[in-house]
Amino acid sequence: MTTRPSKRAFDALRPVTLERNVARYAEGSCLVKFGETHVLCCASLEEKAPGWLRGQGRGWVTAEYAMLPRATHERTRRESTAGKPSGRTQEIQRLIGRSLRAVVDLRMLGERQITVDCDVLQADGGTRTASITGAWVALHDCLAWMKARDMLRGPALKDHVAAISCGVYRGQPVLDLDYAEDSEAQTDANFVLTGSGGIVEVQGTAEGAPFSDEELMELLRLAKSGCADLVALQKAAVA
Amino acid sequence: MTTRPSKRAFDALRPVTLERNVARYAEGSCLVKFGETHVLCCASLEEKAPGWLRGQGRGWVTAEYAMLPRATHERTRRESTAGKPSGRTQEIQRLIGRSLRAVVDLRMLGERQITVDCDVLQADGGTRTASITGAWVALHDCLAWMKARDMLRGPALKDHVAAISCGVYRGQPVLDLDYAEDSEAQTDANFVLTGSGGIVEVQGTAEGAPFSDEELMELLRLAKSGCADLVALQKAAVA
Amino acid sequence: MTTRPSKRAFDALRPVTLERNVARYAEGSCLVKFGETHVLCCASLEEKAPGWLRGQGRGWVTAEYAMLPRATHERTRRESTAGKPSGRTQEIQRLIGRSLRAVVDLRMLGERQITVDCDVLQADGGTRTASITGAWVALHDCLAWMKARDMLRGPALKDHVAAISCGVYRGQPVLDLDYAEDSEAQTDANFVLTGSGGIVEVQGTAEGAPFSDEELMELLRLAKSGCADLVALQKAAVA
Amino acid sequence: MTTRPSKRAFDALRPVTLERNVARYAEGSCLVKFGETHVLCCASLEEKAPGWLRGQGRGWVTAEYAMLPRATHERTRRESTAGKPSGRTQEIQRLIGRSLRAVVDLRMLGERQITVDCDVLQADGGTRTASITGAWVALHDCLAWMKARDMLRGPALKDHVAAISCGVYRGQPVLDLDYAEDSEAQTDANFVLTGSGGIVEVQGTAEGAPFSDEELMELLRLAKSGCADLVALQKAAVA
Amino acid sequence: MTTRPSKRAFDALRPVTLERNVARYAEGSCLVKFGETHVLCCASLEEKAPGWLRGQGRGWVTAEYAMLPRATHERTRRESTAGKPSGRTQEIQRLIGRSLRAVVDLRMLGERQITVDCDVLQADGGTRTASITGAWVALHDCLAWMKARDMLRGPALKDHVAAISCGVYRGQPVLDLDYAEDSEAQTDANFVLTGSGGIVEVQGTAEGAPFSDEELMELLRLAKSGCADLVALQKAAVA
Amino acid sequence: MTTRPSKRAFDALRPVTLERNVARYAEGSCLVKFGETHVLCCASLEEKAPGWLRGQGRGWVTAEYAMLPRATHERTRRESTAGKPSGRTQEIQRLIGRSLRAVVDLRMLGERQITVDCDVLQADGGTRTASITGAWVALHDCLAWMKARDMLRGPALKDHVAAISCGVYRGQPVLDLDYAEDSEAQTDANFVLTGSGGIVEVQGTAEGAPFSDEELMELLRLAKSGCADLVALQKAAVA
Repeated sequence: MTTRPSKRAFDALRPVTLERNVARYAEGSCLVKFGETHVLCCASLEEKAPGWLRGQGRGWVTAEYAMLPRATHERTRRESTAGKPSGRTQEIQRLIGRSLRAVVDLRMLGERQITVDCDVLQADGGTRTASITGAWVALHDCLAWMKARDMLRGPALKDHVAAISCGVYRGQPVLDLDYAEDSEAQTDANFVLTGSGGIVEVQGTAEGAPFSDEELMELLRLAKSGCADLVALQKAAVA
Repeated sequence: MTTRPSKRAFDALRPVTLERNVARYAEGSCLVKFGETHVLCCASLEEKAPGWLRGQGRGWVTAEYAMLPRATHERTRRESTAGKPSGRTQEIQRLIGRSLRAVVDLRMLGERQITVDCDVLQADGGTRTASITGAWVALHDCLAWMKARDMLRGPALKDHVAAISCGVYRGQPVLDLDYAEDSEAQTDANFVLTGSGGIVEVQGTAEGAPFSDEELMELLRLAKSGCADLVALQKAAVA
Repeated sequence: MTTRPSKRAFDALRPVTLERNVARYAEGSCLVKFGETHVLCCASLEEKAPGWLRGQGRGWVTAEYAMLPRATHERTRRESTAGKPSGRTQEIQRLIGRSLRAVVDLRMLGERQITVDCDVLQADGGTRTASITGAWVALHDCLAWMKARDMLRGPALKDHVAAISCGVYRGQPVLDLDYAEDSEAQTDANFVLTGSGGIVEVQGTAEGAPFSDEELMELLRLAKSGCADLVALQKAAVA
Repeated sequence: MTTRPSKRAFDALRPVTLERNVARYAEGSCLVKFGETHVLCCASLEEKAPGWLRGQGRGWVTAEYAMLPRATHERTRRESTAGKPSGRTQEIQRLIGRSLRAVVDLRMLGERQITVDCDVLQADGGTRTASITGAWVALHDCLAWMKARDMLRGPALKDHVAAISCGVYRGQPVLDLDYAEDSEAQTDANFVLTGSGGIVEVQGTAEGAPFSDEELMELLRLAKSGCADLVALQKAAVA
Repeated sequence: MTTRPSKRAFDALRPVTLERNVARYAEGSCLVKFGETHVLCCASLEEKAPGWLRGQGRGWVTAEYAMLPRATHERTRRESTAGKPSGRTQEIQRLIGRSLRAVVDLRMLGERQITVDCDVLQADGGTRTASITGAWVALHDCLAWMKARDMLRGPALKDHVAAISCGVYRGQPVLDLDYAEDSEAQTDANFVLTGSGGIVEVQGTAEGAPFSDEELMELLRLAKSGCADLVALQKAAVA
Repeated sequence: MTTRPSKRAFDALRPVTLERNVARYAEGSCLVKFGETHVLCCASLEEKAPGWLRGQGRGWVTAEYAMLPRATHERTRRESTAGKPSGRTQEIQRLIGRSLRAVVDLRMLGERQITVDCDVLQADGGTRTASITGAWVALHDCLAWMKARDMLRGPALKDHVAAISCGVYRGQPVLDLDYAEDSEAQTDANFVLTGSGGIVEVQGTAEGAPFSDEELMELLRLAKSGCADLVALQKAAVA
């Protein structure tokens, strides 16, 4: 069997930690670490829903994603200097937002918006999956903060949501790719799953040769096992 | 069994046509219609690869995607007026580019770039899948144009690539959603498959309740059947 | 007498067609062809006048103009990528808007706005004159659509408006320059005329040597004849 | 006969002055006043032609146009704050550039660029025509500066160029409209003419009813007389 | 003792003039000259306070700053073309605004805004200090204009404000640096002082070696003397 | 004597910590805390000096500054979404860059650039002074990294540099204002001082009444004492 650069077993997550209450002002926050990938997730409550939602009696959950310039091996240019978020950034923040909304009952929020900022302090692969997993904790705490102030119309959080990447590395399906593995993987797939194992998002891309139905299923099986572990960590964190 | 708004069988494509040589100046072009969704795909050859590729002896294939303002039910604002392509636009054009590159041997192009512009003249759901399917034809013709001028170092096109959406509509997995169906579907998935049936991209999103492994597999089966039909149409078109 | 590259007589238009109802969703639409120049004109009704007009009981007619990237011999960069419409684009869309407003009684519209999008699918010279000529048809149909729904306060369309270019090619005043002729013309003038032959706009530019009063008059005479033919075609189209 | 708000005769210019050498650093400069319209014109020589001209052995003349925020009755927003020059600004600066290039032999400049900045200090109608008329003086002095340093390959300035507006005010064709007259004029036309009376640009717009051939000719006659006076003033200024 | 490039005594201002009522439309205006540095200051009254102030019963005073492209030795690019004001521009206009607000009782204005535009016509060092000194005069006249129309709730202008630069040139503290001196100065400090000698702003920067407390005090002494002269000139100007 | 909201003595710093090597990839990094103000400073070496410096045999040191959206009490909008860094951001990053350059011998760097990113993770007043103080440590370590690789032409770091704010709070000059104190201070001054006590930058602003020479001196005395402590902490950190 192929040895991974990280020496991990093919189905092993990196060490994952979820630290709550790391941001003094945010209504909910979580510093999530998937190994050397570190993301600060802060949930901010705003008393105003986006314009297109006004008058519908519902709220909204959205996300923004960014990297610090030196989160990466080489310094990357700030997007404020470039004048706009890149296509990759927008794609990731749309994914995080959709993933969170999949487990929130927006009618319970009233006409308010929760923005979860996911700022990558350090990147070693899997920043979007770490972001989703940590953002759920920040969102959970923001909703608890609202509940404590009687701001919710009823139970708003329907389930857990967590995400993990899988890939085919030298012919071997593996879980939770770090940067070194990701650079070389033939296939790269991200799965966003609920606490009950339902699929919220699946995004698979063949980097080299196309992949087969069986490979997709194998990656999904790995992801289910990984997300179950992540959900257990979320439960421990918010307990 | 549920009746689709379009009255189509659950596994039926809309009428699909692929009309070649529709743009006077482009090296390859195709007007693709998936029912009332019409996309003009034009492949343009440029004698210059992007800067980051220079000196590597390879070429590049990229795509741009846009909608005419009144391709939609309500007029949408031009992105040139907004100042930048939206997140959705960027996400789609990145997908089209990746899909095309999956079936091209970039080393055969020399240090050149092919840009395939996919401009939606009319939108009725499935614009990204129609774009990929039509873009392949435009790319094919552009490569043929290059071959006729001895510009290729060898066979550049490795396979067909086509794309189709599937979704769960009122509990029923269905193929090739139009706008009316898409608006109501619980699950929406786009599949990009090669001529030989390999998976290039899979993107599934639960709009409402999460979906299961079985549903994903069922949608994949539908997509394989649909893409096989699209590839047959591509073959007929370029014959 | 000089032979034109197009072999046309000095006072001959290119084959002109005006095809209505080409856009499924627009309140009025027209695909106009001046030879190989093809422009899709779509009129969109919006229930909201621009901010600066509010409360005045009048409506507004405006236009936007753009080219598909491969409408031209060489691919041109999208203006959404460039971040803003070019000076040339803005100049042309202001001209189209002024030309249309010259024949509309804005008080009849109520506080609404009609935007006519002119998207050049293929360019071979004369895109702005084709746009104006086709936009009139789209506008006509949009106003008819409104009339059928009792949305007009009275007759809104006062006259036809059409446009044509003229130029001095190798010393010979000629009508309706195509790209090959335009590139070489010494003088280039665009005329926007009403159905009754009044002048709405005249824009003449000496590319090389300045031109004389007599030449201007000669070009105007040609334009009057050409626009009369265009108006006849508009009448036939909307009959 | 109609009395103009300015009390001027129908064919009378406003008091026009052309003051040279008003900018300490510019290679050529002119403060032009058409009555209460004041424009500072500065010609700047740059040792580098624009990229698209490189290697052709020719130079380029271009213009930029702007208004100070309080040049107008109401303060207008700075275009640097708005993020880009407006369509009107771009249209005007393109016109000034074309007008100047019509009287320059670009081959004599070498691969250099002259930029003439026209900054409106105070606006009372006719800013574009005043700009062209003053810009010619700034350009003249810049070319003289170059000649004194043996930088020209031969005579570069072929003729004078000046511009004036005309309009139909209460049925009466009049010369050189100020703001009060312009706001009310039915027809507004700008003429750019050479010292020898040739037409470089004509731009006529019907604000209300379309105008006739005869009116156009009448406006042109007025413009010829006005521009002849402006050219005489230019001659006196540079003598 | 060191001779300054300008031959001025170490504690001598350049010739300073303050010319009022130079802009036809502005509620207050002043053309200020510090030697060859010329700035046009125009105060514009707007009947609307900025959004964040609304409902507080106070007004606002702000400033904008810009340079004409050829105010400088080499032509500088317009900020409207660059797309945004530079960091230096924003820093200066924030300084001017703060300086003016230090001597205005904003409660007396009502919910209105005064914008003072400082446009540098010619630059030879000290443009920000000249701007502040001239802007006070424009502001004074704008407030007088308002008073004459009973628009003030009470006395709004609390004091004079003027500004001057000082620096250490070849070891010698000197007053009011021009461009040649500024380029070579080791230390550069700008002081904004009120008529009564209070400090509103002090900004000192070591260009080379750091400076000492004593040098700072010495520069402050020079600035106090210079600003006293400037305030005397302001008094004479508005007398 | 007035009690500060923070209960600190008038001349007491907040608890300050400087933690090195906090960023895995940066050549030098420091997490600086001034009480509840936390800034991550990362120095990145780039093998390319800015264009305008090329060929001069010198290097450059620059800084960028930003805040995470929820570093503040209320969430602030990302500057990448706003399209550009705000005036305040640009002012601060220019200040940090100048401060660092004051203690670096740029000739020793070769034609390279060091960018120090200062990202505010949490803000409670004094973010710019904390940034400068921490940035020096990151810069120190980056230079040490270069020295270890023989990349420096000689000693590059000439001295320490640290910064602190002072202000007049209810009539009492105090050191190191936190947010609560800053909001209420009459005068706010930032001092950037070297290890040897020289002044690199002084920026004082009267928020309410102007301040006197004596107050400025008193604030400077406080700053000298505070910066001496900060420099001692820097020395301990890099020992």
